Amino acid sequence: MSSAALDDLINAVGPDVVTCDAVVMDRYRYDWAHDERAGMPLAVVRAETAEHVQAAVRWAAEHRVPVVPRGAGSGLSGGSTAVDHGLVISTERMRAISIDPAARVAIVEPGALNAEVKAAAAEHGLWYPPDPSSYEICSIGGNLATNAGGLCCVKYGVTTDYVLGLDVVMADGTLIKLGGIRVKDVAGLSLTKLFVGSEGTLGVITRGILKLVPKQPDKATLVATFADVEAAARAVVGMCAQIRPSMLELMDGLSINIVEDYLHMDLDRTAGAMLIAQSDAPGGARALEISIMEKVCAELGAKECFVTEDPDEGELFVAARRAAFPAIERRGSLLLEDVGVAVPLLPELIDGVAKIAQQNGIEIPVVAHAGDGNTHPNIIYDASDPDSRARAHGAFDQVMQLAISLGGTITGEHGVGRLKKDALPDLLGPDVMALSHKIKNALDPDGIMNPGAVL
Amino acid sequence: MSSAALDDLINAVGPDVVTCDAVVMDRYRYDWAHDERAGMPLAVVRAETAEHVQAAVRWAAEHRVPVVPRGAGSGLSGGSTAVDHGLVISTERMRAISIDPAARVAIVEPGALNAEVKAAAAEHGLWYPPDPSSYEICSIGGNLATNAGGLCCVKYGVTTDYVLGLDVVMADGTLIKLGGIRVKDVAGLSLTKLFVGSEGTLGVITRGILKLVPKQPDKATLVATFADVEAAARAVVGMCAQIRPSMLELMDGLSINIVEDYLHMDLDRTAGAMLIAQSDAPGGARALEISIMEKVCAELGAKECFVTEDPDEGELFVAARRAAFPAIERRGSLLLEDVGVAVPLLPELIDGVAKIAQQNGIEIPVVAHAGDGNTHPNIIYDASDPDSRARAHGAFDQVMQLAISLGGTITGEHGVGRLKKDALPDLLGPDVMALSHKIKNALDPDGIMNPGAVL
Repeated sequence: MSSAALDDLINAVGPDVVTCDAVVMDRYRYDWAHDERAGMPLAVVRAETAEHVQAAVRWAAEHRVPVVPRGAGSGLSGGSTAVDHGLVISTERMRAISIDPAARVAIVEPGALNAEVKAAAAEHGLWYPPDPSSYEICSIGGNLATNAGGLCCVKYGVTTDYVLGLDVVMADGTLIKLGGIRVKDVAGLSLTKLFVGSEGTLGVITRGILKLVPKQPDKATLVATFADVEAAARAVVGMCAQIRPSMLELMDGLSINIVEDYLHMDLDRTAGAMLIAQSDAPGGARALEISIMEKVCAELGAKECFVTEDPDEGELFVAARRAAFPAIERRGSLLLEDVGVAVPLLPELIDGVAKIAQQNGIEIPVVAHAGDGNTHPNIIYDASDPDSRARAHGAFDQVMQLAISLGGTITGEHGVGRLKKDALPDLLGPDVMALSHKIKNALDPDGIMNPGAVL
Repeated sequence: MSSAALDDLINAVGPDVVTCDAVVMDRYRYDWAHDERAGMPLAVVRAETAEHVQAAVRWAAEHRVPVVPRGAGSGLSGGSTAVDHGLVISTERMRAISIDPAARVAIVEPGALNAEVKAAAAEHGLWYPPDPSSYEICSIGGNLATNAGGLCCVKYGVTTDYVLGLDVVMADGTLIKLGGIRVKDVAGLSLTKLFVGSEGTLGVITRGILKLVPKQPDKATLVATFADVEAAARAVVGMCAQIRPSMLELMDGLSINIVEDYLHMDLDRTAGAMLIAQSDAPGGARALEISIMEKVCAELGAKECFVTEDPDEGELFVAARRAAFPAIERRGSLLLEDVGVAVPLLPELIDGVAKIAQQNGIEIPVVAHAGDGNTHPNIIYDASDPDSRARAHGAFDQVMQLAISLGGTITGEHGVGRLKKDALPDLLGPDVMALSHKIKNALDPDGIMNPGAVL
């Protein structure tokens, strides 16, 4: 790239917006996937407006320069890993949030954090439900790009269920406006939904219109331990046949022990699985739902079953679940899996993961959004040991192949990014891959949008 | 078309599946839009399997023959109006439904009626929520093709929110399988969602995998009358800021009078608007939610407010709302509108519709899924009077332009079909139209799938 061309970029977007400083750019090369293959970009554009994004993409299109869109950089699949000689377009500075309480929508810029959107909605007694575990540090733009999930999805759905409209800068720099403040809208193709979860491969999202709902009522919590994952999974099926818990998480025996090592909260180290469930049904219905959950756990031979209406006490157990990630991280480097299956197949999936762990001589504790069949096997390895690293990466692939063999998915909520790209054709097959490429090529004929990710 | 070519079709698909009988084919020319411009097809394929659909589409692709996919023919926008020299592919014979109660999914063929899917789910204590008013006669295939809504959408969402997977026959006859039995899945582009609501313009849906939820709890009903639409709309905003009603319907004064003429159930003829709301919160929470609704209605000066926990008594009022369509139909021919706006703009929309009615010298009673801002202005005209017809069609277009001017949509749940095609560019603008055409052309380069509909 000639320096004259880079000057064009700086002139088009503004010197305060573009940086080519290697030290600064290094902070924009990786996301939480820590992909060692990350490239060194030509420049990082820290856009403050949609016009900045348009100008940068127009420049990239003219010079056939790859564009990697980036939110908060908390992605777990390498979707915003920088590529050599590419442009990183960061939306971290685009953080405006406005709430229309009467229409119950939030109009947000992509750099706003999920937690900031929740807080802005809460000021009006409203709630934006999607809640990735990383909600305090992840951006709405990244949530939209990956169709992020979370803990309350089992009752409240995922990101796409809350998206009423999007502004997107296309690969030629055109800004398109999709949807609007209207809850039901079937006019034309479902383009808004196509862009949600497209991981920056079709365009750069510069604004979202998000549906809000009334604030969540108080929650009651049930914690139950089981001898094995199978009984716990059957309890999940039994509960979800009757009620809609607002949270339904599972930890396997290894996760329980690792969290107990970390938190010392007297968890049952002999349990094969633990369920953490919540009901947020209003008024007296909460106790009714919890009693149904208790009955199901008893019928399935739960070892212990503890119930609390006290939000703080309940939060202790949710915190134990959330602590799984930092607790596991203390034991080594991590490859964080995100495979999903039909809920009744959870025992097969988790048993299979245990076998893969054994065969590869590594630990893979599993936590799961059990009510959705979405699991996070955490592959622990020693990054300083090439053999351990190779076994971990082997296990990572084997877990995805296991999920595929069970009719499941290679990613429930984190996205394909770059880490799972090679497994996508195994999941989708040649016809769906061909169809995906047709759409990609129609919208981004020069392939400049996030090349190397997803497709 | 040569008779040899038609023989090829009959040989490929089977003589019991294809008909070229003009009398039989006449039944497949129209949907409920009764579009007088309907063409006469070459043949109707009453497919029994996905292979029949594939063989028919392959034949159509080879001969560049237009394909109009058709479910139960209950569409209201002319999406399955036949075209001259085209092929109608009816899925009415593909009606298999299988329920997996543990995974809580229904696997359905497109000809199955919505009511049949609901009934099959209910046998396992489960529920498929989307409930178009026509649920007893509309097919799931049509629901998927239009992303159909209904009365419970205000709390439970629309069709797309329940679609986990689709089988689709593409324009070249390839059968692709999207998604699967997995609640959360972000692997690759959101293709499943792209086909939902595509109105047969991208392919023919031959199977759906639908998410089910536990059966709906009992409902309590509130009926409140207001002096004007504005107060009723403000009550809708007030309720939805605090709770999530499971139904929230509005009838304007004219609709109330027309239904009262029809049912003689002592509705208040002086009311400017009536709300019919339900809560299905479990246990004691139902009464809590109803009391919140009552309080909001009182604050907004409701003329009358009636509450019942008796499901049969509640159903009387829901029946009054559902009777609006037959009651109105007695007064003449109908053009059924489906425009939507942000909920706080309902008064502007309904006032504007009243003005359009007055200017054109016709009656346009309005019923609305008020909680979603989705309204059905019913344009009544005399089909035997060309002038009345012209005024009705003029009003139809004016109502869409009004919705667009308020930032709304020209169709909330019925689809664009052929009746609203001309207004779509006014809503979407040239860039989104161009993007839509890019996707259409990428997937159906010869333009054989439902030509003349939507795009």
